[in-house]
Amino acid sequence: MLMTDIIAKKRDGGELSPEEIGFFVRGVSDGSIPDYQTSALLMAIVWRGMTRRETLELTLAMMRSGETLDLSSISGVKADKHSTGGVGDKTSLALLPMVAAQGVRMAKMSGRGLGHTGGTLDKLESFPGFSSAMSDAQFLGQVERVGFAIAGQTADLDPADKKLYALRDVTGTVQSIPLIVSSIMSKKLAAGADVIVLDVKVGSGAFMKTEADALALAREMVEVGRLAGKRTVACITDMDQPLGRAVGNALEVKEAIALLKGGDALELRELCLTLGSCILTEAGAAENDAAARAKLERGIADGTALAKFAEFIAAQGGDARAVYDTSLLPDAPVKLEVRADSAGYVQRIDAEGVGLVSMHLGGGRETAESGIDLAVGVILNKKRGDAVERGESIATIHARTPESAASAAELLKKAYAIGAERPEAVPFVKAIVRAEEEA
Amino acid sequence: MLMTDIIAKKRDGGELSPEEIGFFVRGVSDGSIPDYQTSALLMAIVWRGMTRRETLELTLAMMRSGETLDLSSISGVKADKHSTGGVGDKTSLALLPMVAAQGVRMAKMSGRGLGHTGGTLDKLESFPGFSSAMSDAQFLGQVERVGFAIAGQTADLDPADKKLYALRDVTGTVQSIPLIVSSIMSKKLAAGADVIVLDVKVGSGAFMKTEADALALAREMVEVGRLAGKRTVACITDMDQPLGRAVGNALEVKEAIALLKGGDALELRELCLTLGSCILTEAGAAENDAAARAKLERGIADGTALAKFAEFIAAQGGDARAVYDTSLLPDAPVKLEVRADSAGYVQRIDAEGVGLVSMHLGGGRETAESGIDLAVGVILNKKRGDAVERGESIATIHARTPESAASAAELLKKAYAIGAERPEAVPFVKAIVRAEEEA
Repeated sequence: MLMTDIIAKKRDGGELSPEEIGFFVRGVSDGSIPDYQTSALLMAIVWRGMTRRETLELTLAMMRSGETLDLSSISGVKADKHSTGGVGDKTSLALLPMVAAQGVRMAKMSGRGLGHTGGTLDKLESFPGFSSAMSDAQFLGQVERVGFAIAGQTADLDPADKKLYALRDVTGTVQSIPLIVSSIMSKKLAAGADVIVLDVKVGSGAFMKTEADALALAREMVEVGRLAGKRTVACITDMDQPLGRAVGNALEVKEAIALLKGGDALELRELCLTLGSCILTEAGAAENDAAARAKLERGIADGTALAKFAEFIAAQGGDARAVYDTSLLPDAPVKLEVRADSAGYVQRIDAEGVGLVSMHLGGGRETAESGIDLAVGVILNKKRGDAVERGESIATIHARTPESAASAAELLKKAYAIGAERPEAVPFVKAIVRAEEEA
Repeated sequence: MLMTDIIAKKRDGGELSPEEIGFFVRGVSDGSIPDYQTSALLMAIVWRGMTRRETLELTLAMMRSGETLDLSSISGVKADKHSTGGVGDKTSLALLPMVAAQGVRMAKMSGRGLGHTGGTLDKLESFPGFSSAMSDAQFLGQVERVGFAIAGQTADLDPADKKLYALRDVTGTVQSIPLIVSSIMSKKLAAGADVIVLDVKVGSGAFMKTEADALALAREMVEVGRLAGKRTVACITDMDQPLGRAVGNALEVKEAIALLKGGDALELRELCLTLGSCILTEAGAAENDAAARAKLERGIADGTALAKFAEFIAAQGGDARAVYDTSLLPDAPVKLEVRADSAGYVQRIDAEGVGLVSMHLGGGRETAESGIDLAVGVILNKKRGDAVERGESIATIHARTPESAASAAELLKKAYAIGAERPEAVPFVKAIVRAEEEA
């Protein structure tokens, strides 16, 4: 089999066979296919797309390129969750204890990644002593015992994706539904859960800018998951503005805890209830989404979800007292209110712009080696549709120094658009995509 | 400027600016752009194409990547010729002396390349002592004095093309009109001639399989040549069967000499007269194509074209006696007639198949280091449309050993299709493409 023939076949719009896809993924993993051939094929895939059969085969071949986790020693149905990412996304922090409190176990591997804030692992390190480093046996044991665990992704999981993603990032081949689907789903399949719930973000702050693109991506991931034997659901949710009020590591942890304590958490609560309902329903732990949602709400009201979160923090070495007393979490020395220059309604909050403010304050990571400041970030006091008076605080900057706070405030103002008319409300959850045979 | 932005722009169908194209070609030449980014951009160009302005800029940037030849020291209008290649193409051997005998000087650089037979330089080495190695000064001096020279392409000419072509060859990105045009025309422009005549082959044995594709390629090359200030013409000619009767290095030399001696040379004569007429007309050495053709025919009839060829061979160190006595040229020890299994008319001769026979006999080069056997090859005694009796010779194999002759004969039979009906005659010269403003 020749890589040049495979490239030419895809270039000419052909469908690659499972053997050809297997040859390609093995060659990428073992280094026998040079990067220049891989990137030519990736661009041909961006051009020609892939049939669902090809996408499935690519996903499975990538999954098989490394270690796969066997969760069969854990009792019951195991669930996993993935978000396509956005600004202020602290969903896992609240969702996992909410679901685990209802008896469905979640085995989650998480990355650190680059971005405007740290990843879930960074956020959790706001708890003194918390660690995500654990053996597979420790991971499985904790999921069984506590109900969930969040570990760093092992180096051996899906090495083909690591290589392909690094190359896609520098060759203009990120934006392709089959390549995105295979990258996400190969890792989810390797992680071994029975139920996979996907949060597909759509809007200016998301990778998918239009609902049509988000739906196409969600549909493909759900079908690939189904064909691979997993119960898979995708929720399409708004990322036209940051999620919730907090953007920044410890600030997001505090917002998640506030939700678990039954506080107001805007659309974050809605998102956790929606994703959690899908998980409970698919896992057979609730008859339908409405029953599932009632269970999850009770778990918040009676404190079991919060207790589960504290149990998890303690299990991974963290100081669980901080769950109940968030003053023990990192706190930035400088707070600065950002005040509106004019009265009106918030028309838009540019999620990317708010993310850059967090980055500017030191809350994100530019390279894999960068340190991050867990305390800094932004609290959005006004969100889209809110009325605002001239001089009223629209946001609070949490900074390390007065200088960084001042420049961050200037940046943040640019992310807000304030106008005379109240903007039309848009639904936060746009759609729930289930497998076709179940639809 | 970032290569990732350039890739994304072309991927999304945008037009690259001269600055972006210049950045790309410089980065390819100096190695600062990694191959995996280059191949991604090449595939995006295959996908999206290029505007004429982009193709021109790419051609000029590639031309400027290395040495360019200054022919201004040579008197008169200087011409160059390029063929897109095919099986049995010995055109340059006869065309250059025919044109030079009419006073238009031709400065040709030629490659060896890989293929079913050697390149023009290999064929010429059938003459004992012939050499294509010469300094620029020697090359210019010979063109001035003799009227033409054929030299090996200098290593410093168009290094960007060398790198791009090597990469295209292994990434499925050869088949793209802007990439083909820039590869051919950048070298032709660097070689410095005023008049460029292009022989664009079309048919099963050619790179361009359809007349529409050949016309599109020809049109683009002619316009890029014109915009670069060169008088450029393209002839679209048949390559559905091998050109002429001979395929093999010394055998092709003999066929070219036979033409120069006024012998029957089938469509080879027509091709040389057509290309030569274009050159004389564009160079201002004839009023029109008909007058040019008459001059060229006279040059054959009165022996001046043959004498010019002998003068050229001697000037490059070859034994010119062999021009008049071709028994001094390499001759294969084994000749084997290939006889028809049935009577009828030759429907098709698969040019690729005949090329493979030459390769099989040792007449071609599989890798840059391979030696080639100048004596071996095939003479096609029957061509498309010819009537053939059962048992009659359709071709003669010239081989090194009886064994290779026997297996070559079997292969060659497969290249012939013989049927009851006489196939419709097709024109050999399909079209002549001149610059639009002159059309």
